[in-house]
Amino acid sequence: MIAILVTIMVLDLRPPAGVSLADLHPMFPKLLVYVLSFIYLGIYWVNHHHLMQVVERIDGRVLWANMLLLFCLSLTPMATSWLGPHIGESGPTLVYALVLLACALAYWVLTLSLLALHAPDSPLAVALRDNRKERISVLLYVAAVALAMFAPWLSIALPVVVALIWLIPDRRISHVIEAKPPEVDGTD
Amino acid sequence: MIAILVTIMVLDLRPPAGVSLADLHPMFPKLLVYVLSFIYLGIYWVNHHHLMQVVERIDGRVLWANMLLLFCLSLTPMATSWLGPHIGESGPTLVYALVLLACALAYWVLTLSLLALHAPDSPLAVALRDNRKERISVLLYVAAVALAMFAPWLSIALPVVVALIWLIPDRRISHVIEAKPPEVDGTD
Amino acid sequence: MIAILVTIMVLDLRPPAGVSLADLHPMFPKLLVYVLSFIYLGIYWVNHHHLMQVVERIDGRVLWANMLLLFCLSLTPMATSWLGPHIGESGPTLVYALVLLACALAYWVLTLSLLALHAPDSPLAVALRDNRKERISVLLYVAAVALAMFAPWLSIALPVVVALIWLIPDRRISHVIEAKPPEVDGTD
Amino acid sequence: MIAILVTIMVLDLRPPAGVSLADLHPMFPKLLVYVLSFIYLGIYWVNHHHLMQVVERIDGRVLWANMLLLFCLSLTPMATSWLGPHIGESGPTLVYALVLLACALAYWVLTLSLLALHAPDSPLAVALRDNRKERISVLLYVAAVALAMFAPWLSIALPVVVALIWLIPDRRISHVIEAKPPEVDGTD
Repeated sequence: MIAILVTIMVLDLRPPAGVSLADLHPMFPKLLVYVLSFIYLGIYWVNHHHLMQVVERIDGRVLWANMLLLFCLSLTPMATSWLGPHIGESGPTLVYALVLLACALAYWVLTLSLLALHAPDSPLAVALRDNRKERISVLLYVAAVALAMFAPWLSIALPVVVALIWLIPDRRISHVIEAKPPEVDGTD
Repeated sequence: MIAILVTIMVLDLRPPAGVSLADLHPMFPKLLVYVLSFIYLGIYWVNHHHLMQVVERIDGRVLWANMLLLFCLSLTPMATSWLGPHIGESGPTLVYALVLLACALAYWVLTLSLLALHAPDSPLAVALRDNRKERISVLLYVAAVALAMFAPWLSIALPVVVALIWLIPDRRISHVIEAKPPEVDGTD
Repeated sequence: MIAILVTIMVLDLRPPAGVSLADLHPMFPKLLVYVLSFIYLGIYWVNHHHLMQVVERIDGRVLWANMLLLFCLSLTPMATSWLGPHIGESGPTLVYALVLLACALAYWVLTLSLLALHAPDSPLAVALRDNRKERISVLLYVAAVALAMFAPWLSIALPVVVALIWLIPDRRISHVIEAKPPEVDGTD
Repeated sequence: MIAILVTIMVLDLRPPAGVSLADLHPMFPKLLVYVLSFIYLGIYWVNHHHLMQVVERIDGRVLWANMLLLFCLSLTPMATSWLGPHIGESGPTLVYALVLLACALAYWVLTLSLLALHAPDSPLAVALRDNRKERISVLLYVAAVALAMFAPWLSIALPVVVALIWLIPDRRISHVIEAKPPEVDGTD
């Protein structure tokens, strides 16, 4: 799914009309916003992947929380596409921050629906105990939403801080997962 | 597959031409229809997921019934895209209701083809015994088709009722699935 | 992959500009060609699925044969999109028939590369022993290519015959596959 | 993911406006560049597949290296789309060579991050010991970048050489993988 959302954003990266390298210049702001959105989707991909390693059971509520997360993530390409050529404008910045906030909250709902199904000492509950990064991210997104109409450049800087927080390796990142060799599956 | 259909609908959610928040207003009906279609695809995703938990065997007929369902679902984005800016018009409403009805019937065919392969006391047969929701959905879709040309607003309200019926948690939703930890699969 | 190709073809099914049902009329030839292409991709999906059930080993040659098949299949949307509004024209008919023939030959290469890795009495070799349908399909595709410039309507009728041959249930279709319950895999 | 990138490139293969075969002529350079890009993505698909066969453990660093590779690969369609109608122009050739180089380097980073987690005598370390092809590819891509502004035709010829090096069967290609029969998974 996340791969598909990347796809939609890539579809917006159209080649320039001309053939000289100078024709690439107008693409740079779009490319920057694409990189930023790619990192957010990457954060969700990595976190979702880690989360699924420790899931022991799911129910319909979890499936629908997952759908809600996918729905919020599916709005990312549109927000990216609007912000790309309009960095510094309040409207697109507000929508972009709102979409990021909605994704973070939907992810939170997903973790809560999973916690309700797992014992307090289960690997899942242990893995989700340290949620400082998640809480800081939500706070920064809320601040980005609040600032969007008055200080759009500061507003867009806050999600960049979130991206940096997640990209810097920490204990979680250094967590090693023993892999079973994947099966040869001809159906893909 | 369903993720891809979501994708196609997302492709229709183009950012507005202007940069002010007021430019977002014309997007709201499109967004509403998108949310509705997303919920339908979500219902099929969750039901299909539950169904596959109890499948014990399949044959070519099942594969083709699955293809038929995918075909009907693949018409959803087009119907969504036509209805989006034309809520209240009979033509797009009729096509939308017809596509929803076709999906529901194709899902029914899929369950019948699976029932033919499973014993009456198999988990699959037991899971499919209570199909009130499915039958009510088909009835409401048939009513929506019949009403589309005379009362398009009522016609579009009936599928909304179907969506609400499915979203309200019930015994099926509270069904807990024990998950094996997914394997680390680098091929995605 | 096949789901994605379906996607591309669906992208071509744009809603009509008007809002009356009469505006749907020009869509019918496109829809017909879409149905036809969907059936071909469905045939490859079902056959590929059956084939993978009995694969015991693969090598780089098999992977590349698979890539070749995907490449040929990836040309289907373009051929479909060209033929859609131009049924009865020789050029698009020839290209459509050529793409279908290329897919059939690539599938043949894939089966040969798999046969080279399996013993003559392996389940795979046994499953591939009766390849009458495959050979008849290739012959009809060759005839379709040969006839495209002179009798485009007859040329397009031959692939329809191929589709019917594969859709009519036979021993292979009635082959029952015992399914292991799929794992709950949150990564999709 | 790679299948999706193929998709984006296929989306660029629009049918010609006319209906005669002569209308296909302007498509040939685009088709050639498409074939070339398809082969590169195929090389990464086959190599990535072989690599995952011998992976024993992963960590966050590996996941992010994988993301970096996907990011670089996701730029391929744009570069392909720009080069397609402009073979022989320096700008698009330079961008195409840079994207190919970035993919190769990202793949190298991925292998390094995996080597850091595996013992020197692990199957993964053994499989990656002979990396002559990888090093030659990077060298040829660097040369392609350096030559793009002065000799675009020579610059585009070097990646073709890389493609040929990888397509010619070698010991690695003849490596046979024992396949477990894939499970019947109705969720795709």
